[in-house]
Amino acid sequence: MGDLVCRSCRTTYPFDDPRWKCDCGSLLDIRFRAAFDRDRIRERRPTMWRYRDALPIYDEQHIVSFNEGFTPLVEARIHGKPVWLKQEHLFPTGSYKDRGASVLVSRAAELGVSRMVEDSSGNAGAAIAAYAARASIPCDIYVPESTSPAKLVQIRMYGAHLHQVPGSREDTAHAALQAAGQHFYASHVWNPFFFQGTKTFAFEVWEQLGFVVPDTVLIPTGNGTLLIGAYLGFMDLKLAGLIARLPRLIAVQSENCAPLHRMWSEELEDLPSIQTSDTVAEGIAIAEPMRANQIVDIVRETEGTVVTVSDQEIETALVDACRQGWYVEPTSASALAAIKQYPQSAGETIVVPLTGHGLKSTEKLLKLAEH
Amino acid sequence: MGDLVCRSCRTTYPFDDPRWKCDCGSLLDIRFRAAFDRDRIRERRPTMWRYRDALPIYDEQHIVSFNEGFTPLVEARIHGKPVWLKQEHLFPTGSYKDRGASVLVSRAAELGVSRMVEDSSGNAGAAIAAYAARASIPCDIYVPESTSPAKLVQIRMYGAHLHQVPGSREDTAHAALQAAGQHFYASHVWNPFFFQGTKTFAFEVWEQLGFVVPDTVLIPTGNGTLLIGAYLGFMDLKLAGLIARLPRLIAVQSENCAPLHRMWSEELEDLPSIQTSDTVAEGIAIAEPMRANQIVDIVRETEGTVVTVSDQEIETALVDACRQGWYVEPTSASALAAIKQYPQSAGETIVVPLTGHGLKSTEKLLKLAEH
Repeated sequence: MGDLVCRSCRTTYPFDDPRWKCDCGSLLDIRFRAAFDRDRIRERRPTMWRYRDALPIYDEQHIVSFNEGFTPLVEARIHGKPVWLKQEHLFPTGSYKDRGASVLVSRAAELGVSRMVEDSSGNAGAAIAAYAARASIPCDIYVPESTSPAKLVQIRMYGAHLHQVPGSREDTAHAALQAAGQHFYASHVWNPFFFQGTKTFAFEVWEQLGFVVPDTVLIPTGNGTLLIGAYLGFMDLKLAGLIARLPRLIAVQSENCAPLHRMWSEELEDLPSIQTSDTVAEGIAIAEPMRANQIVDIVRETEGTVVTVSDQEIETALVDACRQGWYVEPTSASALAAIKQYPQSAGETIVVPLTGHGLKSTEKLLKLAEH
Repeated sequence: MGDLVCRSCRTTYPFDDPRWKCDCGSLLDIRFRAAFDRDRIRERRPTMWRYRDALPIYDEQHIVSFNEGFTPLVEARIHGKPVWLKQEHLFPTGSYKDRGASVLVSRAAELGVSRMVEDSSGNAGAAIAAYAARASIPCDIYVPESTSPAKLVQIRMYGAHLHQVPGSREDTAHAALQAAGQHFYASHVWNPFFFQGTKTFAFEVWEQLGFVVPDTVLIPTGNGTLLIGAYLGFMDLKLAGLIARLPRLIAVQSENCAPLHRMWSEELEDLPSIQTSDTVAEGIAIAEPMRANQIVDIVRETEGTVVTVSDQEIETALVDACRQGWYVEPTSASALAAIKQYPQSAGETIVVPLTGHGLKSTEKLLKLAEH
């Protein structure tokens, strides 16, 4: 079907190897040729699995799915500008992370994995826990102590073993890595199969716009799970000769935690060590994104950029969005906030994913509602 | 397009009359001939509005929508029995009430309404508030004081004027009725256009099963918003000659608040006054359903029944469902609990709607998670 390739030393491994990193310690990519058949796509159910021939799972029997995806794309006006909102918060667990979880847990099922480990600021953990439950594979989910109550309860109710780790998001990742020694590491950062799921975002946008790609996509970015996935998906379409160019991908960070922005604007070769402070956009509060170089390369290749928004701007954008009926979590509103400063050209088609459901952030939204 | 007919005295009113009840004080029905064209349906986007010709809104411009619906229908095993779960919790506001809100608020937009009033135990209020926000129509939402925090925050964030009413669900309805004197009453109980939205549930099930109806549908029932809608939808299909028989509709109530069950099992002509106690299934805790007679008539006509489940059974079913990856609110689990006692025949196709998202009930689920 393909093979696994180290991003650093270029060593290749057979496709059936269950590994999630190279022996040299670096990240792996998947080399795999996606196929598309528009007629077959249109005949299939409106789920992310309608792009079945572009997803690296051998056997239909191993697909772990709730018939998710093909989330609605709707025109709206944000800060007075016309944009397309992709309602990724309408996935079963309430975030786009289900795209990655569906493919990654299908991969785990295909490998016959008996137990999985994952760490996240909350949404990816809930997604892996849900799909592990659907596949009857036990899992351990590591989250920072500060994770929203709604996400914690959700992970526990799926039957996952929940581990709340004191300290930073990086301490959580470290604890999971320790545990991953014995089990399958279902990481939305390390495991390349997760990105094979998030790439379906690109396919859906393309189909929903009439088999045309937008000019620009603004994406809340911490670990880059959606930005990298979107890039891979648009690249699959380009390599298949279905589109001529890639959309501009714009990474949006919280100014309270913006390592990628610093790396980009100061043209640094390596991830800088940065000062961070709390941000309302908990889903992108990643001080040390493992795939920082990959993200910056993608932004450069697509002629995009990295921008930051303040918590105040995020909160204002969130309230404005809710007042129009878009009930999303603060992390999602970071990209909506970035629309304000974005110099949209005449006729420029912009897509923004609504990444997570507002119902996940009741405590934070309560504070805003009380203003 | 049709007309409005009193359920009691049979007086008719013109279709464009903005009224929500008859001069005699009774409930109104809509007399309207739904049309279906399978080819056109299949060509349209996968939303509830693909059944456009079956929905009583004149002008496309008045449709208030987030491109919602066509929620995934997935096979699962509940209590060891094969059933189809319809994931109604994946609507924008987190419940199937969006079906009704989309059509009812479209109706309000078509009438040029300047302000709306609604009362609910929470989910219908959130739905009306969201669609009112999308349509930029101000609204007042009345809820009981006991409504879940997640639902209260949601309604407020949509920009609705939230009124928390002490006392029973009936006290809340009374307060809203008072206010409705001056404004459009966007009631999911009174206003017949709401049911013109919830009826799309039936169309989708029919299409998703391959243009075939199931044998049986088990539905959590309080005010009967979904049960009545499902009946109207299946009737539309029958009158159009597309199906030969109606599915058996089974109303599921909480035994702590079961007026319909009492009416059904004791063959009463009128709604009895009953003792109620708190139930974890807050969405169906309706002591005096306005449309009780209509619900019981539907159950009889479809050869269904009314059953009850205990809070203990609901909680057990809820935990079991979550452990399989279905994260729903306790109200939804009432129908899953009823599967246990239901004598499924060999080959009998059963559909159960998952009516509301688990993310709406974090507090209640936290208690279960801690067990």
